[in-house]
Amino acid sequence: MQDEVILSLERMNTIHGIDKMSGILTCDAGVVLENLHSYAKSHNFLFPLDIGSKGTCQIGGNVSTNAGGQYFFRFGSLHATVMGMEVCLADGRILHLNISDDDDNAKRCGTNRKDNTGYDLKHLFIGGEGTLGIITKVAIACPVLPTSRNAMLLVCNSYENDVLELLQCAKNNLGEILSAVELMDYNTLECVQKHGLVGDCSASQLLKDLLDTPTQEQSSSTNSPLFILVETQGSHLENDTTTMDSFITQLFDNGTVQNGFVAQDNKQILEMWSIRESCNPCVSAEGCCYKFDVSIPVDEYMDVAYDVKSKLQQEESSVGDVRVCVWGHLADGNAHINVVTPGRHTKDINLAKRIETIVYGSVVSRKGSISAEHGLGQAKNEYLGQIKEKNTMDVMKQIRYTFDPHGIMNPNKYLPR
Amino acid sequence: MQDEVILSLERMNTIHGIDKMSGILTCDAGVVLENLHSYAKSHNFLFPLDIGSKGTCQIGGNVSTNAGGQYFFRFGSLHATVMGMEVCLADGRILHLNISDDDDNAKRCGTNRKDNTGYDLKHLFIGGEGTLGIITKVAIACPVLPTSRNAMLLVCNSYENDVLELLQCAKNNLGEILSAVELMDYNTLECVQKHGLVGDCSASQLLKDLLDTPTQEQSSSTNSPLFILVETQGSHLENDTTTMDSFITQLFDNGTVQNGFVAQDNKQILEMWSIRESCNPCVSAEGCCYKFDVSIPVDEYMDVAYDVKSKLQQEESSVGDVRVCVWGHLADGNAHINVVTPGRHTKDINLAKRIETIVYGSVVSRKGSISAEHGLGQAKNEYLGQIKEKNTMDVMKQIRYTFDPHGIMNPNKYLPR
Repeated sequence: MQDEVILSLERMNTIHGIDKMSGILTCDAGVVLENLHSYAKSHNFLFPLDIGSKGTCQIGGNVSTNAGGQYFFRFGSLHATVMGMEVCLADGRILHLNISDDDDNAKRCGTNRKDNTGYDLKHLFIGGEGTLGIITKVAIACPVLPTSRNAMLLVCNSYENDVLELLQCAKNNLGEILSAVELMDYNTLECVQKHGLVGDCSASQLLKDLLDTPTQEQSSSTNSPLFILVETQGSHLENDTTTMDSFITQLFDNGTVQNGFVAQDNKQILEMWSIRESCNPCVSAEGCCYKFDVSIPVDEYMDVAYDVKSKLQQEESSVGDVRVCVWGHLADGNAHINVVTPGRHTKDINLAKRIETIVYGSVVSRKGSISAEHGLGQAKNEYLGQIKEKNTMDVMKQIRYTFDPHGIMNPNKYLPR
Repeated sequence: MQDEVILSLERMNTIHGIDKMSGILTCDAGVVLENLHSYAKSHNFLFPLDIGSKGTCQIGGNVSTNAGGQYFFRFGSLHATVMGMEVCLADGRILHLNISDDDDNAKRCGTNRKDNTGYDLKHLFIGGEGTLGIITKVAIACPVLPTSRNAMLLVCNSYENDVLELLQCAKNNLGEILSAVELMDYNTLECVQKHGLVGDCSASQLLKDLLDTPTQEQSSSTNSPLFILVETQGSHLENDTTTMDSFITQLFDNGTVQNGFVAQDNKQILEMWSIRESCNPCVSAEGCCYKFDVSIPVDEYMDVAYDVKSKLQQEESSVGDVRVCVWGHLADGNAHINVVTPGRHTKDINLAKRIETIVYGSVVSRKGSISAEHGLGQAKNEYLGQIKEKNTMDVMKQIRYTFDPHGIMNPNKYLPR
């Protein structure tokens, strides 16, 4: 730790407008994500990034950390949707990257969907975590607001046999209207039931019904039930509902799902999402949490958690009660693995190290990524140096030096020293 | 011009495979684009880049020039779809960016949809035109192959009143199944009729019917008819056809289109695309062509061509017979403006300069982009220095120097000296 200046952009919170022909929204970096949702919606567009913390996080931080979230699968990464950017560099120079320096209106934001005039520098700042410059303004392309939304919560017995089949079936049968496939495991939903749902809507009966689903072979550790939230968004409610109904019928007919609940209205859709968004706070409430955000090839999605569980069990006497909870964006292969020591509140540094070694080892052996959508910060420095090729690390360091030769931007964070 | 080595990657043409869960296809840089289309299709996926030259161009060149094409609107830019990349740098170092160095199979390509482990360097090489390194392998995410495809060719009288209305209506009513909105003007289709369609299928009767559409006020220069190809791709033929029928009915009912043809089968869909893909070769056959590939705000899409026409008319005595042809990817605001001097075969350097000044001046004043999807090469050097901010040019030069301090990669191209 050294003397540091923390910068808040929360007062740079102007939404400059949205171009109704292109759907490109231009705003300052300090705008709270949820305000962009409302603004885009009021102009018949959908803001293409959605994450649990939308009520407080700011778009500049989202872009700097390359946030992913539940719309990623359908509406694309920030590399796909950020069209323009204003950045302030370490030496005070300002870059306008496919964006105008003229604030008068979004129609004239000077942001083009296609622009091939030199290196596309803005991608370095997406996920650059402020180490190359401070994002002060962004232009983001929004699709037309879908008018029809459906959601269902399905219960499967086995990952290998059922969940993978469900996912393939969702991609093939729901096609272009599929908007999310989210997984939650049994341990996670038990925490949600115990610590209570966040948000306004009550989904406690639904949660109880989910957890009460009778399952086969529930005793096997790799076979406790898994809960899948499937959402569609489209333009024709009647068509979409028919499509979804035949999808669910097929899953029941071939025994892929054990149980399932279809949202009957928008309120019930929000209830399903409220269960999903309660995962993180409720698992955190259960005890001390060792949190991981990783990418894993989809057909080995649950295997990292199984590795952790079985390896920790081998040394259980020294570890005590440990629970592994998994949830995440299944369609993207993005798992949030949480190892919880119930009732404890302070981290055990040695245990943290052991769990990290198991998780990262298992992820790397499967050619996954140790950081999927939550950034590097300062916790992953050491591991980054181990898993990245030297050539890549060298180039990254050169890039950092090019932008910030005096090392004043987020010093000692992001890349290893 | 100086001594140069031209590098061909055409023998690096292995397709390593496609991961059936994630849809990520891994291949060498020298694979011809059309082979990727066939390969992806045979595995029930759609390769998300399609351009007219697909029979000869190679994927490494496509990525290096950040090619756009007709799928851009629906399936995203290469910044959205390229997930991993292998690159050889100027000093011989090799980078594996979210891709494995192990060629055995695509399942183990080590390419994750979400990866936040440091700067996302691959975006610098997308559109870097080989100045920072040579792309040798790519991993590209493919969506599931749509099973239903529809297309129609519609004739509008006025850009401002009708084409813009058609585009809005297509986005709102066709929603997630809309896959392309392509514009062709009257002069362009006259060239196609005169010089003959390219490809196997004959669409000459359709072309005749299109050009014979009676129009209002055809005499006015800004009011000759415009032809719009609208395509949908989805998962349910019956639903999609119903949706498209009601879209067309609405356009006829409110007088937005003067005439329209709906493809009755896949053969007719290909005929419509054959007209579209004949635009470039047929306009080129008409005479000496001054070609521009620009982005323009959609509501001023035709205005750059009108500017060129009217300014050249003012000096017509000195210019002779000059025709302006426009076609392009309307939904992206990407126009291919071709100024043709019929019957001539050699470029008039002075005329080229005058036309460039008018086109780029008009594009820049509308905050468009002078290079949309065809790269910078060596022709746009001079203009790039004029339109880009000094800060941005400085950073681009620093980046180039960081990767290639001796300036051996595409010397004197891309950035101005």
